[in-house]
Amino acid sequence: MFEDRIRNVSLRSRVLSVDEVQGWIHDGMTIAVSGFTKSGDAKAVLKALSRRISETNEHTRIRLLSGASLGDTDKILAEKGVMSFRLPFQSEPFLRDRINRGDIEYVDQHLSETAEWVRSGWFGKIDFAIIEATAITEDGGIIPTTSVGNSPIFVEKADKVIVEINLSAPLDLEGVHDIYVPAARPHRKPIPLVNVADRIGTPYIPCSPEKIVAIVLSAEEDTPSTVSAADPDTHAMAEFIQEFLVHEVRRGRLPRHIGPLQIGIGSVTNAVLSGFENSPFDRLELYTEVMQDAAFELLDAGKVQLASSCSFTLSRSMREHVLSHLGQYKNRVVLRPQEISNHPEIVRRLGVIAINAALEVDIYGNVNSTHVFGTRMMNGIGGSGDFARNAALSIFVTRSIEKGGRISSIVPFATHVDHPEHDVDVIVTERGIADLRGLSPRQRAREIISHLVHPDYKDELIEYVRRAESLGGHTPHVLSEAWDWHFRMLKYGDMRSLVHAAQSDVLEFASQYRREPFRVRR
Amino acid sequence: MFEDRIRNVSLRSRVLSVDEVQGWIHDGMTIAVSGFTKSGDAKAVLKALSRRISETNEHTRIRLLSGASLGDTDKILAEKGVMSFRLPFQSEPFLRDRINRGDIEYVDQHLSETAEWVRSGWFGKIDFAIIEATAITEDGGIIPTTSVGNSPIFVEKADKVIVEINLSAPLDLEGVHDIYVPAARPHRKPIPLVNVADRIGTPYIPCSPEKIVAIVLSAEEDTPSTVSAADPDTHAMAEFIQEFLVHEVRRGRLPRHIGPLQIGIGSVTNAVLSGFENSPFDRLELYTEVMQDAAFELLDAGKVQLASSCSFTLSRSMREHVLSHLGQYKNRVVLRPQEISNHPEIVRRLGVIAINAALEVDIYGNVNSTHVFGTRMMNGIGGSGDFARNAALSIFVTRSIEKGGRISSIVPFATHVDHPEHDVDVIVTERGIADLRGLSPRQRAREIISHLVHPDYKDELIEYVRRAESLGGHTPHVLSEAWDWHFRMLKYGDMRSLVHAAQSDVLEFASQYRREPFRVRR
Repeated sequence: MFEDRIRNVSLRSRVLSVDEVQGWIHDGMTIAVSGFTKSGDAKAVLKALSRRISETNEHTRIRLLSGASLGDTDKILAEKGVMSFRLPFQSEPFLRDRINRGDIEYVDQHLSETAEWVRSGWFGKIDFAIIEATAITEDGGIIPTTSVGNSPIFVEKADKVIVEINLSAPLDLEGVHDIYVPAARPHRKPIPLVNVADRIGTPYIPCSPEKIVAIVLSAEEDTPSTVSAADPDTHAMAEFIQEFLVHEVRRGRLPRHIGPLQIGIGSVTNAVLSGFENSPFDRLELYTEVMQDAAFELLDAGKVQLASSCSFTLSRSMREHVLSHLGQYKNRVVLRPQEISNHPEIVRRLGVIAINAALEVDIYGNVNSTHVFGTRMMNGIGGSGDFARNAALSIFVTRSIEKGGRISSIVPFATHVDHPEHDVDVIVTERGIADLRGLSPRQRAREIISHLVHPDYKDELIEYVRRAESLGGHTPHVLSEAWDWHFRMLKYGDMRSLVHAAQSDVLEFASQYRREPFRVRR
Repeated sequence: MFEDRIRNVSLRSRVLSVDEVQGWIHDGMTIAVSGFTKSGDAKAVLKALSRRISETNEHTRIRLLSGASLGDTDKILAEKGVMSFRLPFQSEPFLRDRINRGDIEYVDQHLSETAEWVRSGWFGKIDFAIIEATAITEDGGIIPTTSVGNSPIFVEKADKVIVEINLSAPLDLEGVHDIYVPAARPHRKPIPLVNVADRIGTPYIPCSPEKIVAIVLSAEEDTPSTVSAADPDTHAMAEFIQEFLVHEVRRGRLPRHIGPLQIGIGSVTNAVLSGFENSPFDRLELYTEVMQDAAFELLDAGKVQLASSCSFTLSRSMREHVLSHLGQYKNRVVLRPQEISNHPEIVRRLGVIAINAALEVDIYGNVNSTHVFGTRMMNGIGGSGDFARNAALSIFVTRSIEKGGRISSIVPFATHVDHPEHDVDVIVTERGIADLRGLSPRQRAREIISHLVHPDYKDELIEYVRRAESLGGHTPHVLSEAWDWHFRMLKYGDMRSLVHAAQSDVLEFASQYRREPFRVRR
């Protein structure tokens, strides 16, 4: 049995029960697992471990490294208190709560960098790598499932490897992956990838069979992602972006088929990508870290020609569709290690157009992607920094308001900065687009306030800038008032001021922000 | 005459007077000039322009692009009000003042990125490129002087090129430069540089002779840089860094000769580099954007074997020494365009160890490199972001206090963030070293407060963290008090508190920060 799943004959004797294998994991161990944005994650052994800990009430806490967020494993491990350390990304409400309480040491990290850290030995010894696989080749090569994540470097550096063969993963996944692992320095060579769909490595993760100490079987599917439908806000954002891109192509500032797109994970960004179905562009390419439903919709519609990613993170129905039609995607889609999908070298070379979601942006275009009120971690920076810093064009999207208008996403001063203004070329809300390229901070403030802000907040923001500029500085601020909106929200549950300024000097100053209608700078 | 300086015969007739050439420059033009950190800058035509404007009182303002800071030209142009726009870096007090008053639109930019922006046409037409040169080859190739900066892309994209032949530049500079310009996308290929001293391009900037509309002659030397001598603080910082690097090599986490070093510009960083003269390392390499005096001292001492840079920025005496001994440096030193010296692809590939100066760091390791009190521009981000984001190891140095102790460089919350904590691995002051790799924010705060902070500020910082943690959050803060030190400084001229907390719970909480002596994490 499992001849097609475990092709190395000697390894067939290493199929063990999950219960047996979880018993090898002890307090203080460093465990590195497959899994990226809830797909292709190791699902069996760690869950069995958490069952053991529930039963025995023992004190066992592991240090857990992954590609990015795991499926329900992150939740279960957090609930049982099994993790002492987590890296490099998560998006699970319960885990987030434990992190914010300081119970779990969480290091959120640029997703391209974890592999370098592991390679350098900065995390010390990795006791076990636990890797979900479609199959194992004759030579011990591990064929991943729906993501690649950091699995190649984990397999290379871990003392021992446990493979979770997922029988629900169709064998047709073989050939989707392209595994390339940069050499350790100082022997590093250029990464020979020059086109989105180039195959530069092997279709499996190379692994010496001796290193595979156990194989367990599972059949659990990926946790389905929930994608909200497009709404008028996301529709408007998509239109602004497309209008802008068309304009740039006309001016010769972007190639005709534009650069490969990167689209950050999330409902808003997924909906923005959906909007490209009605765009004038064809032969689009994706060079991105995660393919959500919209990516496959565009492949099916023929709008997207080629796609490179690190994972498929799909709704249940889209997952069924994709996994049963892999044959038709296989020469158009590549799954890569996150070190390559997010690599600065490639992102810069290809001229990626990066579209990521912002939690909060300030009037100068500094972006907070992670911390609510500057303190509470939401998910993590993920790959947004890998892409925004190195992209040919870095676009951030956010609704202008949240919570029914009680929060403005555009604030005087961001309470946390993940992306300094240097890495933010364009910002889009449902109200308009701010093209910040080549503008000084004072000019950026005018562009942002003119085009992005909700009317409920506009006057007060203009008044803030007016007073800040009277104090001087390249990036003017009234530091003592910079977070007044946040304090108001914390105190009254609403960022809006009860009193609106109406003095004539304010109105005069305000007039320069009212150059409407105005969307794209010509 | 000038056969050796203007080798293309047809171009000899284009030698014109500076006064004639400056007359071609009119209001609103975009001018792109050579020059990087005050060296190799075009010195003649723009100064003549400013003389004209002084005499005529005409309204002429140009948009000025460069490599980085210019010599006294930046000062003269700022004084005469000749600039409306300046990019991508400056370090001139008078210009800085005009920028902070909002008189000049200044865009400070990652220094590797300006070339991409010019290539994409985002700045519109460049009317003239003005390039300082040692000589012009038979084919029109321009041999730069003491820096390369953005000259190659300026020459490629400008409508017309003016060459300033500097007769004080020794002809021996020929062969020092290596000019490689990445192709426009989507035809970009990997940059074939795999060793610090690899030569991958031409020793001159290719230029069609027809494009060179004028040649002017000058003999003005580069504005000398002023370097402060090492002092006990910089000596201590150098020792901490070396102790740390030795430790990392012993653990096998760095190669034996460590990675190539990048050292940011400035007196402190120059002194820190000087300290490597007494280090146990040999065969060191530099992959950096600027070589100051210390770089050549280490070359002379045989500590540094090979160096790649974008400019020589030297004191008068070191400049004389270097320019009269170019023969002995030529096979050990390369000057490259800043797009290559700072390129993410190369910095990441080579595993550069980046050492840059911070203006202010906060307890979580976010770094402010540019804005005093979050508003007033000092110089600009320069190349620090190119290196810190992509380096194998990103180190920031700062004195723990400034202004005789009235300012702490380590504050609860940075008033401006250029480098988010993700890009900051190690911070060094004269008091110790904080190794932040793999630590959560709460752990980072302990490491930073334990090892870097001056005693005058330690108790209050501990108390701040204690109260912040009681409010919760992944990155705890008391937002309403986060900038109290800055407000104190603005009001009383001193960040220090008059009252020191001494409650027993504070002392107990404080005990965990007192694990001394402690320098390098084992």
